[in-house]
Amino acid sequence: MRAAGSARPSGRRGGESDTRGDIASAARRQFAELGFDRTSMRQVAREAGVDPALVSHFYGSKLGLFAETAQLPIDPVVVLPQVLAGPRDQVGLRLARLVVDVLTDEEGRSRVVALVRAAASEPAAAHVLRDRLTHDLLLPLAQSVGGPDPEYRAALVMAQVVGLTFARHVVALAPLASATPDDLVASLAPILQAHLVGHP
Amino acid sequence: MRAAGSARPSGRRGGESDTRGDIASAARRQFAELGFDRTSMRQVAREAGVDPALVSHFYGSKLGLFAETAQLPIDPVVVLPQVLAGPRDQVGLRLARLVVDVLTDEEGRSRVVALVRAAASEPAAAHVLRDRLTHDLLLPLAQSVGGPDPEYRAALVMAQVVGLTFARHVVALAPLASATPDDLVASLAPILQAHLVGHP
Repeated sequence: MRAAGSARPSGRRGGESDTRGDIASAARRQFAELGFDRTSMRQVAREAGVDPALVSHFYGSKLGLFAETAQLPIDPVVVLPQVLAGPRDQVGLRLARLVVDVLTDEEGRSRVVALVRAAASEPAAAHVLRDRLTHDLLLPLAQSVGGPDPEYRAALVMAQVVGLTFARHVVALAPLASATPDDLVASLAPILQAHLVGHP
Repeated sequence: MRAAGSARPSGRRGGESDTRGDIASAARRQFAELGFDRTSMRQVAREAGVDPALVSHFYGSKLGLFAETAQLPIDPVVVLPQVLAGPRDQVGLRLARLVVDVLTDEEGRSRVVALVRAAASEPAAAHVLRDRLTHDLLLPLAQSVGGPDPEYRAALVMAQVVGLTFARHVVALAPLASATPDDLVASLAPILQAHLVGHP
């Protein structure tokens, strides 16, 4: 979007797509850091260097801004075949690796944390989390892996992923915050495997 | 505290302990329902039928009110020996039963949900969650069960418990919200067992 290596001036810019992108970046950062309730469209506008009226023009309300910017940091259409490719007895391992990779990446973590934080206080944001994470990714995964009651199994996976995000990045429990990605994958993989495929 | 069967008038009451208790009840209910940010000391005072100045007098700030009212619905000193009593290969089952029982009880659920919701947006509330749930209950449990790295294992248990609370009662994922307590215990027990004692 932005030319590589260009300096990033604060203040207004011309192109509409750049402006939307700047607003979205500022919104994602503030939702992640402050939570839904304490993020304001005015502060987002200030950080993006645009007039607050432009934020309303593009996104309508704060919830509209959240719903549009709080997309999953991964595309289910892309990652679903990747998680499914390979031995069925390692699907939990591949999903664990995907989850930990997303949470290790700063941009990915910021988006997931924003979703989880907002969902805690805003029913409409909980709806986004439910639809995006569960319906678009985890349910098709549980269905493809096969077995009874995919809705229930997808929900258990979702509980585990959200719980890890919450404990590690919101509550910041020290042993989880400082664990290596490999340790987390090793802890998470057998749980996700059991939820997706069943206990051995 | 209140005489059994007595009618519950709205409006002021005399005894200080009753007044504190009424404020605490109103606060717990509003924190659970509205989240930390949208709960106000004024509204808590109104529901409790007292002057807002009394709420400040007893609790100082909203965070003070939260920290004092957001105690765990169980007493670690009481439940820890109960979870530890019995075969070591069923400690996960006993903890799963305790967690599901607390979340099935309306008052217990309301307190835990309030904690989780507030922790999502309020660092000081996350601190309460960390200290109360992890330090007072899960860490001593992981230490008593034995094995390496109890801090890490307690943190994994905490992630699972918070994830279940979040997915079932905050995001309200349908298959978890409608699951029977026995189903949830069956799903949760092997995970908690693996975190506490290690994989078989």
